[in-house]
Amino acid sequence: MNPGDRVRVDRAGVTNEGVLMPSSTPEHLVVKLDGGYNVGIDRADAEVDVLETGVYDVEEAQSESSTSEIAFDDDLPTVSLISTGGTIASTVDYRTGAVTAQFDAEDVLRAVPDLAGRANYRGRVVANILSENMTPDVWRDLAEAIEDEIEAGTDGIVVMHGTDTMQFTAAAMSFVVDTPVPVVFTGSQRSADRPSSDNVMNAVCAVEAATADCAEVMVCMHGSESDDVCALHRGTRVRKNHTSRRDAFETVGANPLGEVDYESEKVTFRRDHAERGATEFSLAPNLNENVDLLKFTPGMDLDAYAEFLRGRDLDGLVVEGTGLGHVHTDFVPVLEELVESGTVVAMTTQCIEGRVCDRVYDTGRDLLDAGVVEAGDTLPGTAKVKLMWALANLADPAEAMERSLAGELTQRSVPWE
Amino acid sequence: MNPGDRVRVDRAGVTNEGVLMPSSTPEHLVVKLDGGYNVGIDRADAEVDVLETGVYDVEEAQSESSTSEIAFDDDLPTVSLISTGGTIASTVDYRTGAVTAQFDAEDVLRAVPDLAGRANYRGRVVANILSENMTPDVWRDLAEAIEDEIEAGTDGIVVMHGTDTMQFTAAAMSFVVDTPVPVVFTGSQRSADRPSSDNVMNAVCAVEAATADCAEVMVCMHGSESDDVCALHRGTRVRKNHTSRRDAFETVGANPLGEVDYESEKVTFRRDHAERGATEFSLAPNLNENVDLLKFTPGMDLDAYAEFLRGRDLDGLVVEGTGLGHVHTDFVPVLEELVESGTVVAMTTQCIEGRVCDRVYDTGRDLLDAGVVEAGDTLPGTAKVKLMWALANLADPAEAMERSLAGELTQRSVPWE
Ligand SMILES: N[C@@H](CC(=O)O)C(=O)O
Ligand SMILES: N[C@@H](CC(=O)O)C(=O)O
Repeated sequence: MNPGDRVRVDRAGVTNEGVLMPSSTPEHLVVKLDGGYNVGIDRADAEVDVLETGVYDVEEAQSESSTSEIAFDDDLPTVSLISTGGTIASTVDYRTGAVTAQFDAEDVLRAVPDLAGRANYRGRVVANILSENMTPDVWRDLAEAIEDEIEAGTDGIVVMHGTDTMQFTAAAMSFVVDTPVPVVFTGSQRSADRPSSDNVMNAVCAVEAATADCAEVMVCMHGSESDDVCALHRGTRVRKNHTSRRDAFETVGANPLGEVDYESEKVTFRRDHAERGATEFSLAPNLNENVDLLKFTPGMDLDAYAEFLRGRDLDGLVVEGTGLGHVHTDFVPVLEELVESGTVVAMTTQCIEGRVCDRVYDTGRDLLDAGVVEAGDTLPGTAKVKLMWALANLADPAEAMERSLAGELTQRSVPWE
Repeated sequence: MNPGDRVRVDRAGVTNEGVLMPSSTPEHLVVKLDGGYNVGIDRADAEVDVLETGVYDVEEAQSESSTSEIAFDDDLPTVSLISTGGTIASTVDYRTGAVTAQFDAEDVLRAVPDLAGRANYRGRVVANILSENMTPDVWRDLAEAIEDEIEAGTDGIVVMHGTDTMQFTAAAMSFVVDTPVPVVFTGSQRSADRPSSDNVMNAVCAVEAATADCAEVMVCMHGSESDDVCALHRGTRVRKNHTSRRDAFETVGANPLGEVDYESEKVTFRRDHAERGATEFSLAPNLNENVDLLKFTPGMDLDAYAEFLRGRDLDGLVVEGTGLGHVHTDFVPVLEELVESGTVVAMTTQCIEGRVCDRVYDTGRDLLDAGVVEAGDTLPGTAKVKLMWALANLADPAEAMERSLAGELTQRSVPWE
């Protein structure tokens, strides 16, 4: 067998069929599947059937693809693919058998032939990191890349991002950018070397969403365990609620904004959304990084945290409290001290669902008396990003934490109805 | 109108009917509803109809109830009601119009006539606090109270507890106590002065569960938004997932252990559970409090946390990481340093659902190399309580974090299946 041959490989009960590609190590076979992605298969105990020889000129394809310029089609919208890294932008690292980030946006486009014919693409790389390494600096770079693309007249933006912290970056962009076109985050929960990978469908649906009649910052990921629908989540209300399921992302406390049907390519919106062009572009990329998130749990060393917080001169603190938004009574004076020294302290809840209401219990009323502000049903992570933004951009950031700036807080006066 | 009269009170669209009781303030009317609970109603704008005068001798009833000894019934099991506080053990504080904890277990029994005839009761008060103020000291007191009751031959235990941190206390009891009888936590999401209060049904179902054929530490709370079923959750896998809904408590990543049908009083178990008497009683109440929980989020000041952690000489640290169990790459050496200095560092995930798997991404493998242990699908809060217990009771606490001691970690090798 030789690179370019069509093969069927059986190993450990799994069968892969496709074109044999050159491998960078002797221990692995690399097979390009018909979907376009490469899989790496351990050579040990693999059974290979050559189905047809020389079906593919690997060398020519490689030199072609590295120089290929996809012709511009006037009838298609233009979508900007901005890559920040993560599994969606990665391929198998055959050396270690696991996944490292090593693709730029153009590579992704080449690797997902299904994207062809849906749009003209502009690709750019802002970063190439696993999203656990995401920082506010990269958020700013991403915001500027979005600005460039919108100024260049793009019809929609797809941001490739690791799933770990996608919700934080999507929230950041929701506050930083006012956009006239869709800004659609997508990623992949399962890498391309797995039969159950979600990368192709997520990328395709994200491109469909980016060309839809909408002007929102959204997350586009599998909406169910099947390959039928991707859900569109508002960037400020989305949460990765499962470590590994393909439909890990959920809109908290509401239905998603909309969905993309994979087969029919139809994009529908189930809730109010800003229409394409309704918002004028503007960018407010400043973020105050002197903000922390504190999760309160019983048994916590309150004295140690009191000292830690006092020493840091924070501009903002988001507390992830218990229940309706509580901490130990002994910690209330510590928060009061912070408020008095100028820190904006905002309360959220670790319950995930539901809203903070500090008028019900003594502890809550004490917190309100101490000057702590209630972030309603804003998710704790979103509240942190919001406070970073509000401190850098608004005259009264504390007041802003109690109302919605970008759909992060839904207004309802009674928490139990 | 006088105390003892049967009245109907209309105020702000709400009608309450019952017996007028003496009020401690002139601004409020207190009405004893037929269900047994008292409600406080603002006198301003209240319309009162006296339906019948002198239906109830308030003074006699008060002196009777304060000395009443409920006769022991040989045919009934004995249930110990242990109160720690919270809404379930509270009544309306008419002075401020809100809820403070001020009942002991006998008061609860008097206030919930529906509990009569189901068991003989022994009542005791371990604490009278809102559960945001719960501490490991109270956990220990509670464990000793449970020991006393079991040694006195009780057939089952109901622990009244605030909902905010019930899951932490239930987890603590799961590790601390091996029990031959049910230990059932219950609480109330809505106080007795609200028509939608869940306190009576939760208390009744908890007593039914406490007399069932089972020997587990469980949480018994509304299983749906209706008043039909209470769910029984394993103490180590339960989470308060909503700030205000009556069915806020959920078993994470599985079905509940069982349920109690309110009408038929039938207790059924849907999953494997230890049967009554199968476990011998034992108590291991020592807890190492030198343990912290750290939630990692992007933009976190890694240097500040590095210094904070270095200075504290922690025995244990549970990290609530992103996705499959990650933190920023730059933080891995900090955790490695902690491990080298003797801190047990265990990884959990902020996704809530799913399990940690640090073999997939570079960051994860670096964490494993640093000596961080994976807590599987153990909930972060439960992992913290477990580590406090494991450090005080086991020779190899790090190893114990990777296996199940009390149903907190479900074994499965592949995270995505
Ligand atoms: N840890 C990876 C996972 C992914 O790419 O989805 C990241 O968030 O970048
Ligand atoms: N904050 C109260 C709420 C309740 O009782 O349910 C507590 O946890 O004690």
